[in-house]
Amino acid sequence: MKELKIIEWLGDRIRIIDQTELPHKEVFLELHDYREVADAIKKLRIRGAPDIGVAAAYGFALGAQAMRASSKEQFLAKLRPVSKTLAASRPTAVNLFWALERMNKAAQSGKSVAQIKRGLLVEAKRIEAENDEANRRLSELGAELIKDGFTILTHCNAGSLATAAYGTALGVIKMAKEQGKRVKVYATETRPLLQGARLTTWELMKENIPVTLITDNMAGHFMSKGVIDCVIVGADRIAANGDVANKIGTYTLAVLATENGIPFYVAAPVSTIDLSLSSGADIPIEERSPDEVTHIQGVRIAPKGVKAANPAFDVTPHRYVSAIITEKGVFKEPYVEKLKKL
Amino acid sequence: MKELKIIEWLGDRIRIIDQTELPHKEVFLELHDYREVADAIKKLRIRGAPDIGVAAAYGFALGAQAMRASSKEQFLAKLRPVSKTLAASRPTAVNLFWALERMNKAAQSGKSVAQIKRGLLVEAKRIEAENDEANRRLSELGAELIKDGFTILTHCNAGSLATAAYGTALGVIKMAKEQGKRVKVYATETRPLLQGARLTTWELMKENIPVTLITDNMAGHFMSKGVIDCVIVGADRIAANGDVANKIGTYTLAVLATENGIPFYVAAPVSTIDLSLSSGADIPIEERSPDEVTHIQGVRIAPKGVKAANPAFDVTPHRYVSAIITEKGVFKEPYVEKLKKL
Repeated sequence: MKELKIIEWLGDRIRIIDQTELPHKEVFLELHDYREVADAIKKLRIRGAPDIGVAAAYGFALGAQAMRASSKEQFLAKLRPVSKTLAASRPTAVNLFWALERMNKAAQSGKSVAQIKRGLLVEAKRIEAENDEANRRLSELGAELIKDGFTILTHCNAGSLATAAYGTALGVIKMAKEQGKRVKVYATETRPLLQGARLTTWELMKENIPVTLITDNMAGHFMSKGVIDCVIVGADRIAANGDVANKIGTYTLAVLATENGIPFYVAAPVSTIDLSLSSGADIPIEERSPDEVTHIQGVRIAPKGVKAANPAFDVTPHRYVSAIITEKGVFKEPYVEKLKKL
Repeated sequence: MKELKIIEWLGDRIRIIDQTELPHKEVFLELHDYREVADAIKKLRIRGAPDIGVAAAYGFALGAQAMRASSKEQFLAKLRPVSKTLAASRPTAVNLFWALERMNKAAQSGKSVAQIKRGLLVEAKRIEAENDEANRRLSELGAELIKDGFTILTHCNAGSLATAAYGTALGVIKMAKEQGKRVKVYATETRPLLQGARLTTWELMKENIPVTLITDNMAGHFMSKGVIDCVIVGADRIAANGDVANKIGTYTLAVLATENGIPFYVAAPVSTIDLSLSSGADIPIEERSPDEVTHIQGVRIAPKGVKAANPAFDVTPHRYVSAIITEKGVFKEPYVEKLKKL
């Protein structure tokens, strides 16, 4: 994946790979405007909590670059809708709000309009670089939990595509492989939008890591058969007590892993931790269109007029989480004091 | 569903509804030959454990009817490949073998070729009628477990389509509604072949029972949110100790229900119980084509060349089963003595 840039800054626009087209086509899009960035996040062309954070930072910088203003105050006022539009793109991943907060702070600290513009671009690039460094470091720390010969179950996609960097859950797996360990992966397809079937398999095949695709409802079967040595997933938001919001289906895998005595790991950068929320009950869960459930890649699979629910995430209580793998260390229960120290 | 005959005997052929075409099209097929019946079972045009049993009985009768023989012995010898071909169609549902055993016994008991032919048709019709009676009786017994206002989660399709009769899991729900109870259903889509999305929603909409379609990986979320009052599924084979083989994903729902303190019920006729197997570990699990996982209704959803697993069933250990609902009574742990008495 070294060759493939998930997000690339091109001076007056960003270039992204359209993740909705993968794995069938590698389509690159150029986004010239912060509204286009927000729209790409909404439509999941850009997806994965850390990736959304990086994209939002560049979207903010793009928005600033296009802005004319005669004073710092006027400029900051004009930046407010930029930040608001990007923040409204998706509600669950906290990295989005974290990145926007950093960008807003950077904007405040500049003196002139020109200086703020330069400072915002520097901050976006810093967020991207720090994100990659955090991914690599947490992957190193996480890889210590992986033994030679392990078969690892993962859900959704928490790789390069999700992070615009080395990856989190898949980063740990890649790092274990780079260390010479033989690893195999079971990837859940991850309905409704099939990020596992489309993206995780694609990334792992590019990395020459053996992968077996399964439907979401097969994971329990393979855990009960003793096929799975550990589960690793990413996260969209982690509350102060260690509760984890992640792609719908994560809670189910955590319960199944616990029931079968299999370690359940969450790999995420510290920017995913939201200390303002005491528990996962407070994390907003995005409800997406029922069409994503009643249709698959444009093909209708259910009767017309049927009602469907589509929560995009669920919350895994911390008691099911064996460890949270971050760039600042691997943490186990009780989480609350350890996460607060970060 | 009263108007819709799932399997109909037409004198020299059977007429079935092709369940692979539902819910988009109501296509009826006429099968003239036992090989066509075996093929329709293999391809899931006919599916659901009790439905497969009824279809196999009629397939056997069709095979016998077409056969010429000068003696009973010659006739019985010629019937052996008929039985074998039908038995080889699918390995997990025991109702198939149970129906074929009844048909083979009926064949033995006849005196002349003509008498055996008549007797086989009578036996097939008896299997069908008894199956419907068993469905209705177990639905009555099961409905006692359903309270007014319940929201019930079900998996795959265990309704009229699966039974060529009143239904098992859906039969219980229908009966509760007929008794005047207000019930709602959450139906898992049931990947890979989407029997929940395609068939259960279709049946429930015809019955005017409110149904919400969810992907398989959402069930845990809704259980943890307190939305689900009980889970009811069908079964393909029940071992002597109460272990249940059913559609892949059933084990996961049972673990999630237990974890959330929600009753998990299995509704199945006594013909689904296989006392020859002491536990579920001995139940053969059909592995189907990986194409069913990598494609949905003909559309490829994963990279070319990706490996995929496709176990069609899983085994739920009896400790997760709150009760087994049969036409002979509702049984709870410990199962082994109670099931043996049946």
